[in-house]
Amino acid sequence: MLRATSALFSKASSMSSSLAFKPCKLALVQLAVTADKSANLANARAHVLEAANNGANVIVLPECFNSPYGTSFFREYSESIKDGPSVKALSEMAKEAKAYLIGGSIPERDPTNDNIYNTCTVYNPAGEQIAAHRKIHLFDIDVPGKIRFQESETLTAGESLTHVDTEYGKIGVGICYDIRFPEPAMIAARKGCFAMIYPGAFNMVTGPLHWELLQRARAVDNQVYVAACSPARDVTAGYHAWGHSTVVAPTGQVVATMEENQGIVYADLDPQALNDFRQSVPLYAQRRFDLYADVANTKPQ
Amino acid sequence: MLRATSALFSKASSMSSSLAFKPCKLALVQLAVTADKSANLANARAHVLEAANNGANVIVLPECFNSPYGTSFFREYSESIKDGPSVKALSEMAKEAKAYLIGGSIPERDPTNDNIYNTCTVYNPAGEQIAAHRKIHLFDIDVPGKIRFQESETLTAGESLTHVDTEYGKIGVGICYDIRFPEPAMIAARKGCFAMIYPGAFNMVTGPLHWELLQRARAVDNQVYVAACSPARDVTAGYHAWGHSTVVAPTGQVVATMEENQGIVYADLDPQALNDFRQSVPLYAQRRFDLYADVANTKPQ
Repeated sequence: MLRATSALFSKASSMSSSLAFKPCKLALVQLAVTADKSANLANARAHVLEAANNGANVIVLPECFNSPYGTSFFREYSESIKDGPSVKALSEMAKEAKAYLIGGSIPERDPTNDNIYNTCTVYNPAGEQIAAHRKIHLFDIDVPGKIRFQESETLTAGESLTHVDTEYGKIGVGICYDIRFPEPAMIAARKGCFAMIYPGAFNMVTGPLHWELLQRARAVDNQVYVAACSPARDVTAGYHAWGHSTVVAPTGQVVATMEENQGIVYADLDPQALNDFRQSVPLYAQRRFDLYADVANTKPQ
Repeated sequence: MLRATSALFSKASSMSSSLAFKPCKLALVQLAVTADKSANLANARAHVLEAANNGANVIVLPECFNSPYGTSFFREYSESIKDGPSVKALSEMAKEAKAYLIGGSIPERDPTNDNIYNTCTVYNPAGEQIAAHRKIHLFDIDVPGKIRFQESETLTAGESLTHVDTEYGKIGVGICYDIRFPEPAMIAARKGCFAMIYPGAFNMVTGPLHWELLQRARAVDNQVYVAACSPARDVTAGYHAWGHSTVVAPTGQVVATMEENQGIVYADLDPQALNDFRQSVPLYAQRRFDLYADVANTKPQ
């Protein structure tokens, strides 16, 4: 793992604009997802425990890790996030791993309205579900001759941004297409999150173009860590995920990444590196909220 | 010049969310700047006419193109943008070139208050000054052991965002460090600008790290063209500019760039490429202004 940030932005003296969080080790599990939900849950468990054994404090699973990714599968694989088998398994994994678990996403069926959501549930090391993020920007794109995908055919969008309190500090959560919209990361960072984490499944068109760029953009603009965790690529599936699970430093530099196969990406998240960059390039004191509104302190219309 | 955008996002059918602007050729003049103001103006003129002869409709000069870049020089080289020799020369160049001229920036002295600004003046093909952008985010950074620069020691920051009406369409203008702040580009794009153009002079620390990344971020998030025009690198000067004047497509792809020496970068700005991408990935219809404010439609507090 490249630790370029510490080398480039070192010895910041005054820390008045610093953000307090504790060092931690992040692990992104780039899981090989199949059509067999039970097998997916068992495979997730094995990798989560492996990451914990390697010292990870915060472990991330990919978007739609218990189901094939496709609008025809979401309802069939959906379940309640109160008591469905997947959230039970995630809770047990987190407890067994004694780590925070950002549980990728699963197709959620809300029994109160029968809606289906693309939902990321989050667990503390005691196995308690401490947050749930329903994807707020549905993935509806149509690149003629390349890829068409319309999540809105079967999914309902979520209605809130998600910031999770952990013993290390606050973490913002989004899902995949949410990363194309700068506001959630701007708001999370300005509200004190030290990282934005996106379970996501970009594809062979948008992956090479934008997967890394969007993570680096969110990181450098907000001076926070950014990570995105993809499923491994399965060329026999209907949707070919880009893979390349990646962790980006607050400077916008990639600190850890991988190719398309199943595996785990690790990175140490370092308050010193984040605060040194904020001290050197003090964006948080320089924004011109007299000329444009602060989206983190403005109510939506 | 790579025209990857047209190849990737082609044949968009419905154009309901399209942005109207006319095709035009952009030229970025990466000028070799010296301590001799008259020589800088003459050199600028020669390159602006060369760009026009090569078909450029919109020509851009770099930040601080008539003066060395350094806080000790700004007051000495400063002049009025009403009737100083540099704006007279710029007006004549635009008229002679029969092109829009985004006149890089010059140290401006405002005779009404004796303040010095870092100011970009803009001219139409008749030579009329149609806009002036005073840099709104002053470049104050301190990377220990690498680079310290504090424009605020001698400069005053501007007080407004700048969008310029041209016969091709609306263009947003910022200067250098302004690009680190996402809001001006978000607002410009949402108000109908098809391009954000930044005269700028990044350095040997921040240049390799962030020059291209920030342009690509502003482009892909807002689906507009982005260009940044640097001075050529002068290793005998106190400030070593990164160079690498660059044009980025609305997809975030670099369409034209160069290394550090004097020269001109050209790019065709193509409404079809911009609108095809907006049609394929329809961010403008998908933003969740019910969950976060639209900075382009919110008054600063």
